Amino acid sequence: MFKRLLSAILFLTVVTLIVTGCMAQNHVSLPMQHDKTVSTEHLVQSVKSDVQSPKYIFMFIGDGMSAVQVNSAQIYMGTNKHNNLRLGTLNFQDFEAVGYQTTHDATSFAPDSASTATALSSGFKTWNGTIGLRPVGNVSGNKAENVDTKNVPKTIAERLKEEKGMKIGIVSTVTINHATPAAYYAHVPSRNSYYDIALQMADSEFDYFGGGTIKQPTGSNKDQKDVYEILKEKGYKIVKTKKDILALNNNSGKVYAVTPVIQDDGAMPYAIDHKEGDLTLADFVKKGIDVLDNDKGFFMMVESGKIDWAGHANDAKTNIVEVLAFADAIQVAIDFAKAHPDETLIIVTGDHETGGMSIGQATTGYDVALEILKHQKMSYVAFDEKLNSIIEKNPDLTFEEIMPVITQAFGLKDEYIDGEGKDSYMTLELSDSEVERLKKAFDATMAEEQSNDEEFYRLYGDYNPLTVTLTHILNNKAGIGWTSYSHTGVPVPVYATGVGAELFNGAYDNTEIYYKLVAVTGLK
Amino acid sequence: MFKRLLSAILFLTVVTLIVTGCMAQNHVSLPMQHDKTVSTEHLVQSVKSDVQSPKYIFMFIGDGMSAVQVNSAQIYMGTNKHNNLRLGTLNFQDFEAVGYQTTHDATSFAPDSASTATALSSGFKTWNGTIGLRPVGNVSGNKAENVDTKNVPKTIAERLKEEKGMKIGIVSTVTINHATPAAYYAHVPSRNSYYDIALQMADSEFDYFGGGTIKQPTGSNKDQKDVYEILKEKGYKIVKTKKDILALNNNSGKVYAVTPVIQDDGAMPYAIDHKEGDLTLADFVKKGIDVLDNDKGFFMMVESGKIDWAGHANDAKTNIVEVLAFADAIQVAIDFAKAHPDETLIIVTGDHETGGMSIGQATTGYDVALEILKHQKMSYVAFDEKLNSIIEKNPDLTFEEIMPVITQAFGLKDEYIDGEGKDSYMTLELSDSEVERLKKAFDATMAEEQSNDEEFYRLYGDYNPLTVTLTHILNNKAGIGWTSYSHTGVPVPVYATGVGAELFNGAYDNTEIYYKLVAVTGLK
Repeated sequence: MFKRLLSAILFLTVVTLIVTGCMAQNHVSLPMQHDKTVSTEHLVQSVKSDVQSPKYIFMFIGDGMSAVQVNSAQIYMGTNKHNNLRLGTLNFQDFEAVGYQTTHDATSFAPDSASTATALSSGFKTWNGTIGLRPVGNVSGNKAENVDTKNVPKTIAERLKEEKGMKIGIVSTVTINHATPAAYYAHVPSRNSYYDIALQMADSEFDYFGGGTIKQPTGSNKDQKDVYEILKEKGYKIVKTKKDILALNNNSGKVYAVTPVIQDDGAMPYAIDHKEGDLTLADFVKKGIDVLDNDKGFFMMVESGKIDWAGHANDAKTNIVEVLAFADAIQVAIDFAKAHPDETLIIVTGDHETGGMSIGQATTGYDVALEILKHQKMSYVAFDEKLNSIIEKNPDLTFEEIMPVITQAFGLKDEYIDGEGKDSYMTLELSDSEVERLKKAFDATMAEEQSNDEEFYRLYGDYNPLTVTLTHILNNKAGIGWTSYSHTGVPVPVYATGVGAELFNGAYDNTEIYYKLVAVTGLK
Repeated sequence: MFKRLLSAILFLTVVTLIVTGCMAQNHVSLPMQHDKTVSTEHLVQSVKSDVQSPKYIFMFIGDGMSAVQVNSAQIYMGTNKHNNLRLGTLNFQDFEAVGYQTTHDATSFAPDSASTATALSSGFKTWNGTIGLRPVGNVSGNKAENVDTKNVPKTIAERLKEEKGMKIGIVSTVTINHATPAAYYAHVPSRNSYYDIALQMADSEFDYFGGGTIKQPTGSNKDQKDVYEILKEKGYKIVKTKKDILALNNNSGKVYAVTPVIQDDGAMPYAIDHKEGDLTLADFVKKGIDVLDNDKGFFMMVESGKIDWAGHANDAKTNIVEVLAFADAIQVAIDFAKAHPDETLIIVTGDHETGGMSIGQATTGYDVALEILKHQKMSYVAFDEKLNSIIEKNPDLTFEEIMPVITQAFGLKDEYIDGEGKDSYMTLELSDSEVERLKKAFDATMAEEQSNDEEFYRLYGDYNPLTVTLTHILNNKAGIGWTSYSHTGVPVPVYATGVGAELFNGAYDNTEIYYKLVAVTGLK
């Protein structure tokens, strides 16, 4: 065993690095603990006493963000010149601690956001679709009713509020009662119980909610009391305009800052579709700091929920721009940490991977050309909306009529020039077979009924056939491949910086993140 | 800034963990270094003086192995019971240090093994296909002739031998003059110059070569002097039988231990195809330790080269069994480290990902069922051989005649029972559309000429159409997806344990691994 210090001068910036390690002889032969929770609980007991506790904790969760999504954004921001390939800058890639988490839940190795967020927030595996309640029994399939509703565990956010008096912020680009944010304040057998989740949000006493709207605020049948009203009765100030949101501060009391601009299902717009002046995720983090700042510190969970949605839709450009906007939001925390250097912990991770995204696909071989994606001007959702409004006006729309709209939105052109050899995939010109794929997809979009056979699902998932074929073709030309419209079992990186960051080094299960937070904050 | 020690008792094993960290305030805002090499060289200067140098270094490279390949093996070895999902044990997942490396080369973000192995062995990016020589200029495409042949850099292995007198071992499951092993002793513009590489192997004075045969030992035109003869003239003892290999020890002098059993292109057989008593990769590592053991220590590079080949072929079962055999080989080093606890460093990583493998694919949604793969009994290569011998005897082979052979090798049955709903993919029964896919592929296999259009390549790559369709269908039923027949740009994990392991924490470029080794071994 040994420990050491080293310091290095890098360029003009004085950077102090402490690299300290261990030759843990016995650890070499340590068998993998099958029940990580148990081992981690032991760890917590021993760590607790001598750990400095961070006053300010930022927990950033990129929903559906694994190493591939991060690296794709770096390549997209980088340069592709031969002998001078460079990755772009993503701030959190430079954090001093890096780990890997495995993400399976109690149902599957390709897990759900409700269960994975519960693992992160509460330290245990649960059923696909369940939030904040422990699974019971060993049943086949997803049995959301088989949960322990008597012994309801506390989330890390609830514990930090109750036991340490810290203020709590919950921010998401998607609806605030969606699975990931809900996993920090709600306990329900099914993530689809949006109204119940929203009621628990109103009862949470958390100090700041920001970002997306509430899904089903009057219940699934629209026959319940409006949760926005209930929130007001419980003392929440609800602000829905940019001006009012920007005016919030730490005298505003309990606050829910709702995005003034909404896109698909109550969420904030995709970053790629943002208009000049729209509030960004970074804005909601900044405002969260303003509202939460107090002597006892705060814990803020910030979810970028639409990285996942763009992954489901296999839309690489939208995914990448969303990751970049997420990095912008993380920058707010990094800047805050600079002003509070010995008191801040920032964690950045994902809950699972979405889409089976890969930097490389069959027909592009050993080349990728992510610069091709720069020609895509809007998300699949914005294109869907555009397409639907065109079809509404012109129900007899032809492929020839839609092609200029496609060119405008994705850069793809129906003017294939052969003779470029294998490099044709790096151009925006559509090959004959690609045009055939598009025409077939266009016909499927225009058809009155959708097929539900396996091949149809493999081609289009549940998406607009034309739109998803456009992103597939553009992605393939750029060298991006996808395997799924769902989540995958691909492990997810963890990046940490600040007080206690070193605990997040290593390879571990997602449930350990809760225990590491318990350890670093000195909870009992 | 702070540092601390903590120790924890886990179960009955006393494990000492040292977790030490930094709140490197300035580091939070450190911009990503675009030229990592420069910054790392600075790091080396400052680390050098106070680092304890490991006497024994094991560098394990799983060719084409990223986090997905590792996690797939863990899932395959685990259990899939609801509410009790467990990952299997892979020894190196418990190493105390974990990092991420980015793997692009000077040509592409989806790199080649020659250039990535050069990055690992020598600390710089070079062209796709180039080994141990620096690229020159900024040309378009891969120009292997544009290399600096005047200033030939030394590899980490060459430097440890020359500057520290350590003995050097190079082990691979594939041919010993293939890209990855070659990158530790050879310097050639093109990896395809197998004869030149073999000549440099003979001149290397390295102490132990083990595993695969030499590719093109008499040159590409079979008109050169046999390199095996040259090796003997240079003082190498060449042993080709199991008995002679097992008799080797540290009095054997310079040794080349050649696999007695060969499969596809001069390599060792896939682990899945091993016969009882065949020498394994673990055996070649064990024997390497016997041969290399000496007072000045040793550096042994061990490549599992066919994880990559199985990835190219999109054969998940063969890939997984190969990863497990790799872990067995790593166990030999772990056991050695137990006997030499304060003197050993073990690094496990990959050079790049291959295949765009994912744990999840479109039609299986949120489920995976890797246990389905247990029915596959042989590699795609062994099946190809079987198929070819059947076709040779019966050129008019019908699909009905080959189906029982398919069932025997892959478990797949042409007896689809519908009515099981969405779970049918988890069974071995082929659906009608799967049978159609197989019949089409079988026809392509039996056809005299292969199509070279894009769609054909997308379906079958350069593989036997029937065989690759069989692994695709079996993999898809198990929930494994692939995007490519080539390497991808997916980042790769690094696992390290022992003396200096802590240097390998973090997210960094593959070239840094060389500099970290330089730093930890105190090279000038």
